[in-house]
Amino acid sequence: MDSMRIVLAQINPIIGDLTGNTKRIIQAIENGRQKQADLVLLPELALSGYPPEDFLLLPYFMKAVEEKLQIIIQATKGMVVIVGLPRRNPSRLEKILYNSAAIIDDQKLVGFQDKVLLPTYDVFDERRYFEPGEHVKTWSIKGKKVGITICEDLWQHSGFIQSTYYRRDPVLELQNQNPDFVLNLSASPYSVNKFHTRLQVCKRASQSLQCPILWCNQVGGNDSLIFDGFSLCIGPQGLIQCAKGFEEEEILVDLEASSQTFHVERNLLQDLYQALVLGIRDYFRKLGFQKACFGLSGGIDSALVACLAAEALGPKNVLAVFMPSRYSAPESQEDAAQLAYRLGIDYKVISIEEPFESYLQILSPYFAEKAHDMTEENLQSRIRGMLLMALSNKFGYIVLSTGNKSELAMGYSTLYGDLCGGLAVISDLTKKQVYALAHWINRHEEMIPWNTIRRPPTAELRPNQKDTDSLPEYDVVDQVLQSYVEEHLSPEEIADHYHYPLNLVLDLVKRIHLNEYKRRQSPLGLRVTEKAFSVGRRFPIVQRWMC
Amino acid sequence: MDSMRIVLAQINPIIGDLTGNTKRIIQAIENGRQKQADLVLLPELALSGYPPEDFLLLPYFMKAVEEKLQIIIQATKGMVVIVGLPRRNPSRLEKILYNSAAIIDDQKLVGFQDKVLLPTYDVFDERRYFEPGEHVKTWSIKGKKVGITICEDLWQHSGFIQSTYYRRDPVLELQNQNPDFVLNLSASPYSVNKFHTRLQVCKRASQSLQCPILWCNQVGGNDSLIFDGFSLCIGPQGLIQCAKGFEEEEILVDLEASSQTFHVERNLLQDLYQALVLGIRDYFRKLGFQKACFGLSGGIDSALVACLAAEALGPKNVLAVFMPSRYSAPESQEDAAQLAYRLGIDYKVISIEEPFESYLQILSPYFAEKAHDMTEENLQSRIRGMLLMALSNKFGYIVLSTGNKSELAMGYSTLYGDLCGGLAVISDLTKKQVYALAHWINRHEEMIPWNTIRRPPTAELRPNQKDTDSLPEYDVVDQVLQSYVEEHLSPEEIADHYHYPLNLVLDLVKRIHLNEYKRRQSPLGLRVTEKAFSVGRRFPIVQRWMC
Repeated sequence: MDSMRIVLAQINPIIGDLTGNTKRIIQAIENGRQKQADLVLLPELALSGYPPEDFLLLPYFMKAVEEKLQIIIQATKGMVVIVGLPRRNPSRLEKILYNSAAIIDDQKLVGFQDKVLLPTYDVFDERRYFEPGEHVKTWSIKGKKVGITICEDLWQHSGFIQSTYYRRDPVLELQNQNPDFVLNLSASPYSVNKFHTRLQVCKRASQSLQCPILWCNQVGGNDSLIFDGFSLCIGPQGLIQCAKGFEEEEILVDLEASSQTFHVERNLLQDLYQALVLGIRDYFRKLGFQKACFGLSGGIDSALVACLAAEALGPKNVLAVFMPSRYSAPESQEDAAQLAYRLGIDYKVISIEEPFESYLQILSPYFAEKAHDMTEENLQSRIRGMLLMALSNKFGYIVLSTGNKSELAMGYSTLYGDLCGGLAVISDLTKKQVYALAHWINRHEEMIPWNTIRRPPTAELRPNQKDTDSLPEYDVVDQVLQSYVEEHLSPEEIADHYHYPLNLVLDLVKRIHLNEYKRRQSPLGLRVTEKAFSVGRRFPIVQRWMC
Repeated sequence: MDSMRIVLAQINPIIGDLTGNTKRIIQAIENGRQKQADLVLLPELALSGYPPEDFLLLPYFMKAVEEKLQIIIQATKGMVVIVGLPRRNPSRLEKILYNSAAIIDDQKLVGFQDKVLLPTYDVFDERRYFEPGEHVKTWSIKGKKVGITICEDLWQHSGFIQSTYYRRDPVLELQNQNPDFVLNLSASPYSVNKFHTRLQVCKRASQSLQCPILWCNQVGGNDSLIFDGFSLCIGPQGLIQCAKGFEEEEILVDLEASSQTFHVERNLLQDLYQALVLGIRDYFRKLGFQKACFGLSGGIDSALVACLAAEALGPKNVLAVFMPSRYSAPESQEDAAQLAYRLGIDYKVISIEEPFESYLQILSPYFAEKAHDMTEENLQSRIRGMLLMALSNKFGYIVLSTGNKSELAMGYSTLYGDLCGGLAVISDLTKKQVYALAHWINRHEEMIPWNTIRRPPTAELRPNQKDTDSLPEYDVVDQVLQSYVEEHLSPEEIADHYHYPLNLVLDLVKRIHLNEYKRRQSPLGLRVTEKAFSVGRRFPIVQRWMC
């Protein structure tokens, strides 16, 4: 094979930032030129950022995309550039757009390869905007036969897709055409262990086609979604090259050079940690904010959020507020203070006793004969939320909410209380994952106080409260949560499989549905599993299937 | 034409209530039998309720649907019944389900007609679940050639659909087949003036096919969506029969009887009022709640919500809470008290001064040198939210939030303050619509105090505050809102068309995008326009297209 030098430009676009993304793309082209690349490959919808959502429906947004494409074309002198962008469907039949790759050769637009398989499940809504591409063909580029595919186009071949059984398999369609290599433009979000699934998908395609696959992924956080990068070149024998995860990188692939394969084993907890850090960092950076505050309770959830925020934003930009009440244990405050000290973050103590008393007093004429109940517990949580929001309003912090996925599932959280915030950092981590990540953070030395990790979870909203007063053990909650929400098992199947009483499972599953209304008003949360409580999981609030 | 008696059964199903909906369907069949009907027609997805969302992805939900279909089949002795339901796609090619009509004749399942056109825009996600039907054919029913269509199938023909240009037009496909009449199963949500659009759609189809169209719609509120009913029979000359709006009804159409047409002119404000009342009523009823509370401020928004809630739930089930601060005008309290008295709703006054003072005090060490700003304004709003939530927790009220669409657009509302609640009643009404509806309510006698209607809008969060201190006149806000959000015009087009300064329009449009984060945490709101701030409008929080 003649020499062919290809740069995979793993960029971090901002949604709708057409001017900025065009600069990023042109910079990648320039860098490719310096590396004497023949071809620069960019991610899916690199120009708009992925996912651009309803911006795609604005005609003047699409006009601006077309103008930026012209600017990019001018920047490709002497090179081939393949860049992802939305384009208008010229036939205007069915949907108005294609999700496309523009193929540009030496300042000339050669054509567009349109995405054939359009994910419309979970967080993906591509059929809302795009018409499926018709043709799967090879392109003649610098004397080579090149297959060009976009993200999902590779996936049907290996059967990893749930709930859609595409009629077409673009990999199979390329098979008779004997491509020299196949490019893929992706915007593939992170989830735990997705890296290995992707490797299999790409390897399977490479084996069927008996040629290398060059796969270029977006990187960076966009709202809930965290794109992890890890762009790669893979051959039938295995992985040949792989970019870093969780940061921008351009890797040069020389198809003539040695194609020795190597094996990568990712540390899943380290990746999870990095994903969350990137999610926080990009949410703040792309919004133009620097500083975060949150309630540090002495419990494990807020301790984990403290570590992640300090890493993402720098300790100087992080304020932890301990807000004791009559029910706070002294050890909670000690643990909170110690963690804040170790992380070097700002730390304040504000008691909620005074406002709590004042609410109880003005409500007493109405509550007179009623026993203390969840009302008084929620009041405390909401006072804390209000104090954090006041600090946010006055000083420009974004409030981080610290609830985990198990609590969100069970409704073990207070709307307008601990659910306050601009970003829910660990809302897609089960309690079990929270512990695992805390242990990983402490792997070399004690950062999160071991006392925080060892104590039974408590909301400290009444005397001697424990989470297990109103919930089963988190092991059970987490297992039911995963089986029901992520794996779509029925309550009967879960009870059978794990030998739980059916009533217990039903009770937990009903709680998941009953608390839909709380989650609907929760802050945007970072998605790290295949099924987060987010836009990817759509259930009605009012329903009578499971109540 | 031989006699053919058809009942259009406009039922109000609950999402996922397969047992209850089956009962409703069987009751409609029994009622049809008593009316000596030959055929009973039910709405789209009548068995699951529309929209069932991700329940459709649960295999055991679909199994239960199949079991209920068998029960319905048994209930059809001597009759033809056509009922909407999801069914599995036997080929399992692409999506796993069809959105179907089961055609049952005398306890035998004759077949399924699958929906051909699947709306995947605005609030509709049908491509997420369904595969388009392949065949458009006529069915032989009691000696007649009958076309069976599902909702959207009729719409392509008249060109009222935006952002999708379907390849197929089932009305045209029926044309060569000369049906005697065409049935349509619908779940068509209300929006202002939708009634007349639908009349045109059905009439156009009837004219092209030169036969009657019998159109059966779902009725009732399901989360944000309000289905208005108005099932109808229409011929090429016009409307022949029409069911009531906003309630269940079964109408008998005798195709042999006179087909004299008549003209209907709806009162748009009356329909809007009834839609909102139904939306509130069904939200509460279907969740099993009776009582609502909200903050009554003396302003027009909460006054309107008071009227709607009293009508929907009965005055005895409604609590209005006036929560004065140092900035409340005495006339606000007088107006609030007077309205509560006129409506006969429960009314309480709880001052927020004490908790406000207590917050100011405990925050003073941190705020020391900072001027009063939005922080202190938000505190007041949030104290009110907390008091309402405490009453809700203690006594089982659902809190109604009272913000309008103009405020939601501009972010002129406090997260965790006036945005607290389980249901946002008027969140899809512009300020202009709020005034129009208030006038309509007062058309016979003064219900909402004229003083409330006349006073310039104010949040009363600082001395002598007016909304126009920080916003342009609502006329301008509303015009930009409608042009930008509902009509997708660009800022330049809006400025040109209405002779507004471009900077003013850009400022308002940027505010709409900047406040996405607040709306994402707002309560579910009742949708009454073609483009509400709800699941039908999907924009990212983090973006740099308009900021």
